[in-house]
Amino acid sequence: MRKYNKVTDGIIAKLREICGAQNVWTEGGKIADCSHDETSVLTEARYSKPDVVVAPGCAKEVSQILKLANENVIPVTPRGGGTGLSGGSIPVCGGITICDDRLNKILEIDRQNLLAVVQPGVVTAHINAEANKYGLWYCGYPMSVDECHIGGNIAENAGGGMALKYGVTMRHVLGLEVVTATGEILQLGGKLMKNVTGFNLKELFIGSEGTLGFVTKIIVKLQPVPKYRKALLALFKNTDDAIAAVPQVITKVGVVPSATEFIDRYCYEASCNFLGAKLPIDGVGATLLIEFDGTDEALTLAIAEKAGSVCVDGGAMNIFVAENDEMRDKLWSVRSHIDEALRVTDPTHIDEDTVVPVSEIAAFCREIYAIGDKYGVKIVNFGHAGDGNLHPTIARKEGLTDSEWEALAEKVVCDIFKLAKSFGGVLSGEHGVGLTRTAHYKELCEPDEYSLTLSIKKLLDPNGIMNPGKVFPIEDI
Amino acid sequence: MRKYNKVTDGIIAKLREICGAQNVWTEGGKIADCSHDETSVLTEARYSKPDVVVAPGCAKEVSQILKLANENVIPVTPRGGGTGLSGGSIPVCGGITICDDRLNKILEIDRQNLLAVVQPGVVTAHINAEANKYGLWYCGYPMSVDECHIGGNIAENAGGGMALKYGVTMRHVLGLEVVTATGEILQLGGKLMKNVTGFNLKELFIGSEGTLGFVTKIIVKLQPVPKYRKALLALFKNTDDAIAAVPQVITKVGVVPSATEFIDRYCYEASCNFLGAKLPIDGVGATLLIEFDGTDEALTLAIAEKAGSVCVDGGAMNIFVAENDEMRDKLWSVRSHIDEALRVTDPTHIDEDTVVPVSEIAAFCREIYAIGDKYGVKIVNFGHAGDGNLHPTIARKEGLTDSEWEALAEKVVCDIFKLAKSFGGVLSGEHGVGLTRTAHYKELCEPDEYSLTLSIKKLLDPNGIMNPGKVFPIEDI
Repeated sequence: MRKYNKVTDGIIAKLREICGAQNVWTEGGKIADCSHDETSVLTEARYSKPDVVVAPGCAKEVSQILKLANENVIPVTPRGGGTGLSGGSIPVCGGITICDDRLNKILEIDRQNLLAVVQPGVVTAHINAEANKYGLWYCGYPMSVDECHIGGNIAENAGGGMALKYGVTMRHVLGLEVVTATGEILQLGGKLMKNVTGFNLKELFIGSEGTLGFVTKIIVKLQPVPKYRKALLALFKNTDDAIAAVPQVITKVGVVPSATEFIDRYCYEASCNFLGAKLPIDGVGATLLIEFDGTDEALTLAIAEKAGSVCVDGGAMNIFVAENDEMRDKLWSVRSHIDEALRVTDPTHIDEDTVVPVSEIAAFCREIYAIGDKYGVKIVNFGHAGDGNLHPTIARKEGLTDSEWEALAEKVVCDIFKLAKSFGGVLSGEHGVGLTRTAHYKELCEPDEYSLTLSIKKLLDPNGIMNPGKVFPIEDI
Repeated sequence: MRKYNKVTDGIIAKLREICGAQNVWTEGGKIADCSHDETSVLTEARYSKPDVVVAPGCAKEVSQILKLANENVIPVTPRGGGTGLSGGSIPVCGGITICDDRLNKILEIDRQNLLAVVQPGVVTAHINAEANKYGLWYCGYPMSVDECHIGGNIAENAGGGMALKYGVTMRHVLGLEVVTATGEILQLGGKLMKNVTGFNLKELFIGSEGTLGFVTKIIVKLQPVPKYRKALLALFKNTDDAIAAVPQVITKVGVVPSATEFIDRYCYEASCNFLGAKLPIDGVGATLLIEFDGTDEALTLAIAEKAGSVCVDGGAMNIFVAENDEMRDKLWSVRSHIDEALRVTDPTHIDEDTVVPVSEIAAFCREIYAIGDKYGVKIVNFGHAGDGNLHPTIARKEGLTDSEWEALAEKVVCDIFKLAKSFGGVLSGEHGVGLTRTAHYKELCEPDEYSLTLSIKKLLDPNGIMNPGKVFPIEDI
């Protein structure tokens, strides 16, 4: 295993020189804040503090920091909004955390080219607060959009609730300024909609979870704001019927929905109870929340109604089409409150993020419930049905010590990952490998693919300084 | 410079063993066919024959061929439909050409997951011939869609006329089976809409122009067929007004057009004359052909009409909205016959493929015409305005010998590429660096980016066997 050097007083002095003393922290709240993210399985015992946190103000400062760290073989952990769900920003080897506090500006809303130029520390939703003024819209939409940073979205290639129609983060990124592990500043892409000169380096950095470099500037595509959104909730007897309806809706209506969310019986009931929602519960085995957006209100509503009919033809017991925004908000609240509702019913739980082909969701769910039965653990399911991206949620079994629960949970998670692979799937659709899934990723990835991925990591980061312990098991880098 | 070995009789015997004797050619029409593509500047003197052409029937055979070539350091050139416009499939170092003649099957139209599984030798339009039967549609749309192979689209990350709304090829590719230069068979992605495990290797191979491996299977996303297409032609006094109208149309109408094509005065007049089209010509300085697709006929037409009004507000002298498909075909024929029309007015010409930010198109065109004036050469412009992807077309100057013309054309092209860079652009949006632009690519790419790209090439193809002379100047690999 690689041996990292300590952050000495000399290094800290140099960091102060680079960023200004007021932007370098070696103790206090800032250090504690940077010791964790929002991954539920990574409880306080797994927090890990950086030796020093720095907040550079420009790419040149980032470059100087990375050159210093690279020459001295000191681990570097990039940090955005801290909303990650795989421990990606936890500095497990200590060292330097680079936070994006000062790289938090929207540099430009370019109305001629329909794009935004932003720094990584901008909260994703703030791009829209600005773009909306001009009828424009950034359609990347992770569920943490009000708190996460766009830089983190790049690191994770974030997905979210509208990826079915609009695609994941990579689809919207036209340009990146990246500082490599060895301190070179690269300008990849630009204000360009097409570019076939050389390899897709920009895409290599997107989703690399901070293991290849630090992004300092991002150019994202903007689109016209969709004027109308019409949602429907369809209640099915069982998951098979619900999932079979997804491709039927798309092909028979002839329009790709902007969202197609799946909620299993347990999550639906928990959320309805949590909200006091007056929705039928008896006999409901699975639900779909489907939304269309469009430029014409009546047509968008008609499309949603047609989707409802397709669901009924496919065995839906009940459909609720939201005719106005108030009703739409009510329907969405069932989906958006699942997490809060589960915190009431099952205060401690583990969120997973598997992806399978859409057609396999129902069978995959059945097998997941069977894994739960096998270990005597409650597992519930919800997620982005149109993308095949499910979030199996494993409730903590009562009467176990922390270490007993960790050991059991590890077995359950392993089984779920292997199951996903057996269905042609992968272990993460939008949360990333991060810290929590490195061993599973290596185990389930084909050896030739893993070896190529690792060799690219070593080529770009020869001293293994960038975010060690993430994506790859630490002993491999 | 790397020294390649000759294709010996022993190698040919082994290739016959791998693929069957009937699938290996060392002379005749097959060898001649594989000596060129459709790049107009690469005239017969620049054709280059492979020593042997092989047509493998599966990934395993491709793997055996590449292992043999790699062990013996023999150049390998992948070949698809031969419709390339940058010489990418010309075997400049001789050696083995791998053609995709036998890898030409549509393996599956998966209606549950809305995707197609195809081999690389499938003609792109044939995917749709099959998918359309089920109301589905592959929306990659290079202009050579009726002849090019989907494998070539992957190699070039093809764009085309509908990339503004639907994105370039990369956007639609869910999975790839790739054989690496060293013969490993990788399965990247799958029937999955999301995947954030490891780096984006799939995207690294897409657009790598056959310099990293040979693709043997492709999974592409399908969408519902758009039911209605409504086009309009807007005639402007000048390019500035036409280009300024593009973002206005998108933001004021609130819908992204499926196509926004720009045609300059000369191309418009040449095409109208060629077609005998009864369209106004006097005073027309530039035209936009804009199309919207949608699920409702009246609404799609209303959207096109609104786009027309926005154009009029932006200074259009005249607009023609196609109310039916016959009129639509007529409007499109002005765009689709530019190349044929220019073959009449200017039989020998060079097609370029620059990209600039959309907002810079008008200024870029002005400067291109100035370059033409400087060298006494006629340069005309058309292309995908919504993408900033222009195809400057340089007519051969009369009274020059072949070598004088080549020398002059090289100066003109150099100036155009440098100009594109000065506007924040690049030298190719969809045709690729290929053979014709290697020196320019290296000159205009930032050294750190070039060096990283080259180091990835060397990592994946240590013996430099894959498509030598393409993307990188041959002395670099």
